[in-house]
Amino acid sequence: MVTNGRHRVVIVGGGFGGLYAARALANADVAVTLIDRVNHHLFQPLLYQVATGILSEGEIAPALRGVLRGQANAKVLLAEVTGFDLAGRNVTAVEPDGSDLVVAYDSLIVAAGMTPTYFGHDEWRAAAPGLKTLEDARWLRSHILGAFEMAEMARTPEERAAWLTFVIVGAGPTGVELTGEIATLARGILPRDFQDVATRDTRVVLIDAGPSVLPSFPEKLRRRAAADLRGWGVEIRTGTAAEDIRTAGIDLRNPDGSIEHVAARTVCWAAGMRAAPLADALAAASGTSTDRAGRLLVRPDLTLPGHAEAFAIGDMMGLDDLPGVAQVAMQQGRYAAGAIASRLAGEDPPPPFRYKDKGTMATVGPRHAVVDAYGLRIGGFIGSMMWAFIHVMYLVGWGNRVITVMRWLFQLTTRNRSQRLVDVRHAASWRELGDRPGPTGGGDA
Amino acid sequence: MVTNGRHRVVIVGGGFGGLYAARALANADVAVTLIDRVNHHLFQPLLYQVATGILSEGEIAPALRGVLRGQANAKVLLAEVTGFDLAGRNVTAVEPDGSDLVVAYDSLIVAAGMTPTYFGHDEWRAAAPGLKTLEDARWLRSHILGAFEMAEMARTPEERAAWLTFVIVGAGPTGVELTGEIATLARGILPRDFQDVATRDTRVVLIDAGPSVLPSFPEKLRRRAAADLRGWGVEIRTGTAAEDIRTAGIDLRNPDGSIEHVAARTVCWAAGMRAAPLADALAAASGTSTDRAGRLLVRPDLTLPGHAEAFAIGDMMGLDDLPGVAQVAMQQGRYAAGAIASRLAGEDPPPPFRYKDKGTMATVGPRHAVVDAYGLRIGGFIGSMMWAFIHVMYLVGWGNRVITVMRWLFQLTTRNRSQRLVDVRHAASWRELGDRPGPTGGGDA
Repeated sequence: MVTNGRHRVVIVGGGFGGLYAARALANADVAVTLIDRVNHHLFQPLLYQVATGILSEGEIAPALRGVLRGQANAKVLLAEVTGFDLAGRNVTAVEPDGSDLVVAYDSLIVAAGMTPTYFGHDEWRAAAPGLKTLEDARWLRSHILGAFEMAEMARTPEERAAWLTFVIVGAGPTGVELTGEIATLARGILPRDFQDVATRDTRVVLIDAGPSVLPSFPEKLRRRAAADLRGWGVEIRTGTAAEDIRTAGIDLRNPDGSIEHVAARTVCWAAGMRAAPLADALAAASGTSTDRAGRLLVRPDLTLPGHAEAFAIGDMMGLDDLPGVAQVAMQQGRYAAGAIASRLAGEDPPPPFRYKDKGTMATVGPRHAVVDAYGLRIGGFIGSMMWAFIHVMYLVGWGNRVITVMRWLFQLTTRNRSQRLVDVRHAASWRELGDRPGPTGGGDA
Repeated sequence: MVTNGRHRVVIVGGGFGGLYAARALANADVAVTLIDRVNHHLFQPLLYQVATGILSEGEIAPALRGVLRGQANAKVLLAEVTGFDLAGRNVTAVEPDGSDLVVAYDSLIVAAGMTPTYFGHDEWRAAAPGLKTLEDARWLRSHILGAFEMAEMARTPEERAAWLTFVIVGAGPTGVELTGEIATLARGILPRDFQDVATRDTRVVLIDAGPSVLPSFPEKLRRRAAADLRGWGVEIRTGTAAEDIRTAGIDLRNPDGSIEHVAARTVCWAAGMRAAPLADALAAASGTSTDRAGRLLVRPDLTLPGHAEAFAIGDMMGLDDLPGVAQVAMQQGRYAAGAIASRLAGEDPPPPFRYKDKGTMATVGPRHAVVDAYGLRIGGFIGSMMWAFIHVMYLVGWGNRVITVMRWLFQLTTRNRSQRLVDVRHAASWRELGDRPGPTGGGDA
């Protein structure tokens, strides 16, 4: 890339942190290179709506090039970053065809996010995937919608019940939102679509090792959310941990220490996240320490110790134990960009980063949400309106905003969803579940 | 399935033929079972718009259950039909998890469609996929949009040129529409998104062994379409056949017999189709003869010889050499449904099937189409308006209609597309292209 001698800023990751940093550098005299292993930004707060058939992938995943097309000083590279040479100031990466790539920088911003962790039980991953990428969402959509298809063809009541049992591990916002939408699918959307199976009989179980759902919310809203979920028929099991997860189901450890097996064809993991592996690479390269979740303990100005030109922002850093939410990443992206620009302008370094907490919110099914923001604590339908307004505001692109609102209205008014695709290749994962009897005259009376 | 003694109609395939047959039986005293290996209908005429990032998958692929939810006498099974026992009147199938399924019928309607054929060169399939399923469209979208990404990172002019060369084999409607959209992407949508590569330099080559594009259209419209394509910078090579296709490019046999290699990372196959393999199974089971394209030569009432209760409709049958278009399948679906209903009512058998030709049309880029319908022969912008109106009319579901129109307006006004996702798993296919030099300081000035 010809930079004409301009200061080269390399940004790793096109999520909230990386994208907001790139945009905040639009008017700086720098050459920005944004590297991501995928070609799109991802609006993760709505990922669960792709996983449950409400939104299409494009609504929450605009092409990074399209988003940055108006910014003359920014370019995008589709490559997976593999390591850092902080002394030599360059980043190593692999292109999609396997070729190696080395990108030199003057300033570096790493915003690689988090990845699900299974607390030492990586073998659970295959049976209980997390929800962090578009591929995860597509997989989960096929798995959830496919489970009802399989239930329709089940040969025994036990088999049918297992297909109609969904266990969500982890009652933070992602787990609660996913739970609410699965319950809505089963009881509000699908009942008229199936003949042999009563989808209203679906069992949706939300488990969490802690004492309540949405632990980061105020007590009143926690109770409100739990009541809303129970209104959708969700079984809430707090103080309950995953003891073992297999494709045939999950073993729960109850508060009294007893182990209980739940036969469930679908188990979703929303329990634990840790910093992306690139955090380890940065820690090793710079001697930065990390916290329990592998997050980098950066300096108050978000740089790595001894490397004032290298920033780590967003979910992958653990400064002040800030929450892993979009707002932190956005504000840190803007902060890092500002710090680089003011350094180039020869100005004083900015004061340490301070997070401005705008609050938190989560949906509980399509017509309810709990909102703790702007000094307000709201639940129910009013909460869901506020939730919808704020989420649409932060979506990237007017086209996506308009179409997202239309899809929400569509699902509320028609009780249908427009993205109900089951990937047929997904069937391979069902084959492994095996243990079914041989052929029968299933189509006959 | 409990049919309460009602006449059991099994329909194989949820495309235009199968879906229209199922719907036409809504008021008949029958139990309809629609079996498809995927859970959605597919509006194939707009598949090329999914392959080029305009529409999301859901817009053209509504869930079959959702479409038929209002129809009390119809149920849907997600299974792949593997064979027919015409004497015993049952269908064998495999469920997604690999279990066998046997479905008995009193009347059978098979509408399994067509599949790309490579005229004895099946080894071309990997390098030049066809465009017939949603998976094909998703693959092609990743391949086309990914090619521009790879061009941006290319190390040599030759490599870059190969990534920026797109060859489409076959100049029927699918080939022409795909060609027009790839050219539009390269010259109308993407130029501002790339910095190192001039996407306007993209070479788009449309080849056909015959003497002209769109051979089924009147001469005037053929010339109009060719002129429109050339206006988008498309190279039209008629009288030219594919001699060999490999991942590194295509060998063309020119009209003078000379062989010319075109280095192209993307080759799309829109040249040949033949009846789905189930046509062979039906032919073998019933002794029905087939035509050159493997299509069943059914009787004038669309039944198989000797089996008045078994119909084969749509693309997979070759009666009167009817074209493989949606209108034929729709009309035959309704015809077969009517024949079954009147037989049950003890009425006289209906007169032989007669196709009512409503005409044909194809887009040539986003603002032009050629239309030969209702006695009109129109090209250009007016043609594209007529094309758009008719296609939206036949889309399934109001939500999909509204959102499709919005997406078309969006792409025309913003010169962007909303579904520009490249599947990262797709990168595996690029690895095989290999033959690139080692790492360089690609990111440096």
